[in-house]
Amino acid sequence: MQTLTIFTDISLEGETKDLLVNNVAPHGIIWGGKKGSLISLKSETAPALADADIAFGQPGVSEIFATSHLRWVHLSSAGYTRYDTAEFCKMAKDRKLALTTSSSVYAEPCAEHLFSFMLAQVRRLPAALKTRNDFAKASRHQLRSTSTTLQGQSVVILGFGTIARHLIELLRPFNMKIVAMRRQPKGDESVSTITPKELLPALANADHVVNLLPGNDDSSRFMAGPQFAAMKRGAAFYNIGRGTTVDQDALNEALHSGQVSAAWLDVTEPEPLPADHPLLSAPNCFITPHVGGGHANESEMLVRHFLENFRRFLNEDSLLDRVF
Amino acid sequence: MQTLTIFTDISLEGETKDLLVNNVAPHGIIWGGKKGSLISLKSETAPALADADIAFGQPGVSEIFATSHLRWVHLSSAGYTRYDTAEFCKMAKDRKLALTTSSSVYAEPCAEHLFSFMLAQVRRLPAALKTRNDFAKASRHQLRSTSTTLQGQSVVILGFGTIARHLIELLRPFNMKIVAMRRQPKGDESVSTITPKELLPALANADHVVNLLPGNDDSSRFMAGPQFAAMKRGAAFYNIGRGTTVDQDALNEALHSGQVSAAWLDVTEPEPLPADHPLLSAPNCFITPHVGGGHANESEMLVRHFLENFRRFLNEDSLLDRVF
Repeated sequence: MQTLTIFTDISLEGETKDLLVNNVAPHGIIWGGKKGSLISLKSETAPALADADIAFGQPGVSEIFATSHLRWVHLSSAGYTRYDTAEFCKMAKDRKLALTTSSSVYAEPCAEHLFSFMLAQVRRLPAALKTRNDFAKASRHQLRSTSTTLQGQSVVILGFGTIARHLIELLRPFNMKIVAMRRQPKGDESVSTITPKELLPALANADHVVNLLPGNDDSSRFMAGPQFAAMKRGAAFYNIGRGTTVDQDALNEALHSGQVSAAWLDVTEPEPLPADHPLLSAPNCFITPHVGGGHANESEMLVRHFLENFRRFLNEDSLLDRVF
Repeated sequence: MQTLTIFTDISLEGETKDLLVNNVAPHGIIWGGKKGSLISLKSETAPALADADIAFGQPGVSEIFATSHLRWVHLSSAGYTRYDTAEFCKMAKDRKLALTTSSSVYAEPCAEHLFSFMLAQVRRLPAALKTRNDFAKASRHQLRSTSTTLQGQSVVILGFGTIARHLIELLRPFNMKIVAMRRQPKGDESVSTITPKELLPALANADHVVNLLPGNDDSSRFMAGPQFAAMKRGAAFYNIGRGTTVDQDALNEALHSGQVSAAWLDVTEPEPLPADHPLLSAPNCFITPHVGGGHANESEMLVRHFLENFRRFLNEDSLLDRVF
């Protein structure tokens, strides 16, 4: 058996490190990157990548181009924006380099994070937690009479990847009207599907618009003035994909006019936003600092997911979460 | 056909009022109570109750005793604490007076409200919304590494009424280990069931303890020192039933010691809590002001539920949400 060399720039310690080392043996590991950079998108790739057959983590794009015998890159993130270029794709095709992501690892926490946003929105959680122990009739009445339930409400989901499919399963018991937008519907989706061209009329019927689009040239500022204007007045907007997919000035305007009643954002562009950014003072703009995929067992889950794909790689089975 | 007289002390306006009036005709309505008291537990019952065959709202207990031909009381609340006495029960039995609640109306908003608490807890929503745009490594790392998902976690639900059953359906896609405590398990429950005597060991295995108990003599301070001590260290506690079912001093201690990592309370005793109450400054004590059942269409839903029961009453069918 040929002994493979796995480069990784993710930071592992104790049992999780042992888990990786013991389960890839006799194949070897080259440790690179900065301490603690579990999913940093900016980690620097050690020159050691040149010696690797497999990379697990966030190897730099130019460093990948510079390698000669790298056969598979397994990203430690769900997103793959900086690898999603025609140039990279062509190189990967020519060299038969596989690219996979950790999207399955992040699907559950991201879907639950988004779902926590939706329930907090209908139950008016930020206002209710702030009102707290204030039983003045006006504040309680205002809360009760503006709270709703997801039951029977409608949602448009932009994107139909792992997170979307997971979210749809979580939403099942709520009997929502679910429409998913997909670049190329395949007819095997479990919900009603539309193409991007059919989006505007669909937005007019949705109480919730959930943006899960990945960041790439096609999705740049996908949600802009016309899209927010097409939404049902007072609907809520959510983004847990990439900040680049939203025209944030247009969103800010829509929040100020009340066209969009609330925005729940786990991602912005840039991250963090500059301290004087208008979204930080826009009404009902709820922001979490890109923690949607976070999980107490994140590093262990990343390693287990890599190990499953490594097993598949050795057996020449189809890889999970494969981009190309 | 005998023309019945329906007393109601709930405040209705416009279309919702017409909905009730038109659908009970030719039976008549006597309007009592104070304007705006949709579900107030303290509304005063007009003397007019004496003339009624049916009461819809929150008729006073002593006023009900004083009536002679009242046959059915349909409460506009899910709770029925003040009617839940041996004395009232005996009187109702002797006089063949039926008591029903609006619990079905509140089951969905209450279940979703509780569910929003659980998801906010695992996704650390209060801290994440506060951290907001702060990408300092320490705060983000702390958030990500303490966030979890409901997937595979365990929950003990105290009480097995309409809200519990509804909540269990919502939890299905999360593959949680669900145990429900019921005074008298009937064997037809859709989840694993325990009696109150079996509670302490069950608490030791639960990541979430959800209290849905109604307020009565049996449930008074049901969750006290020994129960909180029996919980898995760091588990979360939720209450959307009645504040009286919790020993709040014991809860406060458990929050301070970290035995209970967070409390999510939609109900307290009294409501509101006095401004200097220790729970108001206890760590991770998240309070909403008894709004769990709130819904934008609450009054319409209450009327529709009453009308369905009124139809059943006329046809001598079994009444929905019947207490006795």
